[in-house]
Amino acid sequence: MENCPLDKAKLGFHTWSLLHTIAAYYPDEPTPQQRKDINDFFTLIGRLYPCETCARDFTKLLASRPPENDSQKSLSEWLCRIHNHINQKLVAKNYEQKYWQVSLKI
Amino acid sequence: MENCPLDKAKLGFHTWSLLHTIAAYYPDEPTPQQRKDINDFFTLIGRLYPCETCARDFTKLLASRPPENDSQKSLSEWLCRIHNHINQKLVAKNYEQKYWQVSLKI
Ligand SMILES: Cc1cc2nc3c(=O)[nH]c(=O)nc-3n(C[C@H](O)[C@H](O)[C@H](O)COP(=O)(O)OP(=O)(O)OC[C@H]3O[C@@H](n4cnc5c(N)ncnc54)[C@H](O)[C@@H]3O)c2cc1C
Ligand SMILES: Cc1cc2nc3c(=O)[nH]c(=O)nc-3n(C[C@H](O)[C@H](O)[C@H](O)COP(=O)(O)OP(=O)(O)OC[C@H]3O[C@@H](n4cnc5c(N)ncnc54)[C@H](O)[C@@H]3O)c2cc1C
Repeated sequence: MENCPLDKAKLGFHTWSLLHTIAAYYPDEPTPQQRKDINDFFTLIGRLYPCETCARDFTKLLASRPPENDSQKSLSEWLCRIHNHINQKLVAKNYEQKYWQVSLKI
Repeated sequence: MENCPLDKAKLGFHTWSLLHTIAAYYPDEPTPQQRKDINDFFTLIGRLYPCETCARDFTKLLASRPPENDSQKSLSEWLCRIHNHINQKLVAKNYEQKYWQVSLKI
């Protein structure tokens, strides 16, 4: 594949696209097997996602906020909140880096 | 997410990007747990991929050609062959559609 492996930003963008689309097609009334499958899938994303620190943080996040797998709506909303949480972590990190640069007068 | 759910082509493109990157970061000497994880992950793609016919065909393909999970190299090469197999199916389908259009003089 061209440009493979992808960089962290492109990989993230592609992965969020897949995850939000999977959530959008999750059933309104999932069976026990479908609930198990979606939980296992997110657990495996936390193990296989090819950015080590991201995967580790994501696994911790899943432990404190497991998938809300009762319906399509609850799953999609949960995923938006999870995505927002990561967005906020990244913004915070950028501020920290800026502060560090300013304080060192880089 | 904007443009969510994605159409079939964009969803495919994003998913292949993730899958090939996961394969590129798969270990050279995987543990039994890592082998199980990668097999489970592809099985779940075959259940959760949000295009029903694609997912069904992919599950059949996995049954006849399971992940070659001995090493990074074997997994990446296997995935390229799987991707090629699907590319060829789609080309064949396009020809069929063209033939059908020509034969109906559309
Ligand atoms: C599981 C996972 C963990 C990650 N962990 C890290 C990490 O620890 N460190 C790191 O640097 N990067 C991490 N990333 C990557 C990071 O989340 C971004 O994908 C990357 O920074 C590129 O950002 P982007 O601006 O292209 O938008 P992305 O965050 O990739 O989002 C793609 C698109 O989704 C839409 N969107 C944004 N927020 C939401 C929301 N809350 N709900 C619905 N749609 C939304 C927007 O249209 C956006 O353009 C992770 C990605 C994933 C999938
Ligand atoms: C699991 C799965 C099953 C699918 N099943 C179907 C289906 O049944 N019917 C359907 O219409 N669509 C299916 N799709 C979507 C289809 O495979 C394409 O993603 C879609 O048609 C868009 O094609 P594309 O031209 O953007 O390139 P894609 O096939 O999405 O490929 C993306 C990029 O990968 C690279 N690439 C191409 N071939 C290979 C290869 N063999 N090895 C490594 N890199 C390569 C190229 O750079 C290409 O631009 C499936 C997708 C996935 C992930």
